[in-house]
Amino acid sequence: MTILPVDLAKAHRLLNHGPTVLISARHGGTDNVMPAAWASVLDMDPAKVTVVLDSGAQTRDLVEASTHFVMQIPVARHLKVVDALGTTSLHDMPDKLDRAGVKLFDMPGHDLPLVEGCAAWMICRLIPEPHNQTTYDLFIGEVEAAWADDSVFRDGRWHFEDADPEWRTLHHVSGGRYLGIGDILDFNRSPDEGPGA
Amino acid sequence: MTILPVDLAKAHRLLNHGPTVLISARHGGTDNVMPAAWASVLDMDPAKVTVVLDSGAQTRDLVEASTHFVMQIPVARHLKVVDALGTTSLHDMPDKLDRAGVKLFDMPGHDLPLVEGCAAWMICRLIPEPHNQTTYDLFIGEVEAAWADDSVFRDGRWHFEDADPEWRTLHHVSGGRYLGIGDILDFNRSPDEGPGA
Repeated sequence: MTILPVDLAKAHRLLNHGPTVLISARHGGTDNVMPAAWASVLDMDPAKVTVVLDSGAQTRDLVEASTHFVMQIPVARHLKVVDALGTTSLHDMPDKLDRAGVKLFDMPGHDLPLVEGCAAWMICRLIPEPHNQTTYDLFIGEVEAAWADDSVFRDGRWHFEDADPEWRTLHHVSGGRYLGIGDILDFNRSPDEGPGA
Repeated sequence: MTILPVDLAKAHRLLNHGPTVLISARHGGTDNVMPAAWASVLDMDPAKVTVVLDSGAQTRDLVEASTHFVMQIPVARHLKVVDALGTTSLHDMPDKLDRAGVKLFDMPGHDLPLVEGCAAWMICRLIPEPHNQTTYDLFIGEVEAAWADDSVFRDGRWHFEDADPEWRTLHHVSGGRYLGIGDILDFNRSPDEGPGA
């Protein structure tokens, strides 16, 4: 497994299929991470994303203060980590990240906390939209850099079919219950044809 | 199989796991349907959704003119229908819906076209946000009514585990290639506990 850069024109493919993501941010010496099921691609080139960050979430405060965040894609083996991150608060539990078993790392040139072991990472610059943020808790980010683990995403495509099942992305249904992503519904078409390619 | 109303406080669960949706709308005697992979829950109660509707899409014009749309959730057996809808335009092909094999039906009290055979349907009232629509092609809807086919969604929950595989939701990856949703990653927790329940 090697972490490789993702062509920004294809970064939307990391999120097209609707996985639950982890949002992490850093400000003033504080790192935090939260799961977010309500995330979507907004645009392809330049790649933009939307994510709903509840007004009670401390990670949101860090995003607003630092104007950057990481949107990363956890996988099946992170199930308990993701659940723990979603059910605890840094306010009440200062060692929340350690207790959840989260290990962070930095990418050179970016002062942001990335979560180890994810399938992919997108570093996003907040596009300030105060009305959306205040009224809807809706945040827009432009993807400035992206990487993926070549165990499951390489050459601009997901490769769930030949990866270990622990690399399947998580899709939240409700109450800490997740579905894994399934198999390709084959269609005999090139992945580089058609809409959304 | 019976189409049953979905409690609006649980309508977000139809979309939490990130399926590709079909957006349909009606105005001035014209119906149209388009696939949209870039859709997300925005809020729970009242349930709101976001969806990106490209400026070239005729369905978008119908949504803007009528201020309503249907967000419905197609499943594996719709693969070719969804692809056909995404690769043809009503401008060029007036019988696009017939050719794609789409059958529409009405719900009493709602002057909107619903696509037969989907897993679920949400009737949405457009919340006008001209800046988002113009700048980002981003549309916000409030869910006014929702139904699901009890073959796969009942009692406020998805039941993929005991439904035929043809009921698996579609998750677009790129270029008309879709993944089906997979199985529950079991966690031994009640679906009514925890965040996002």
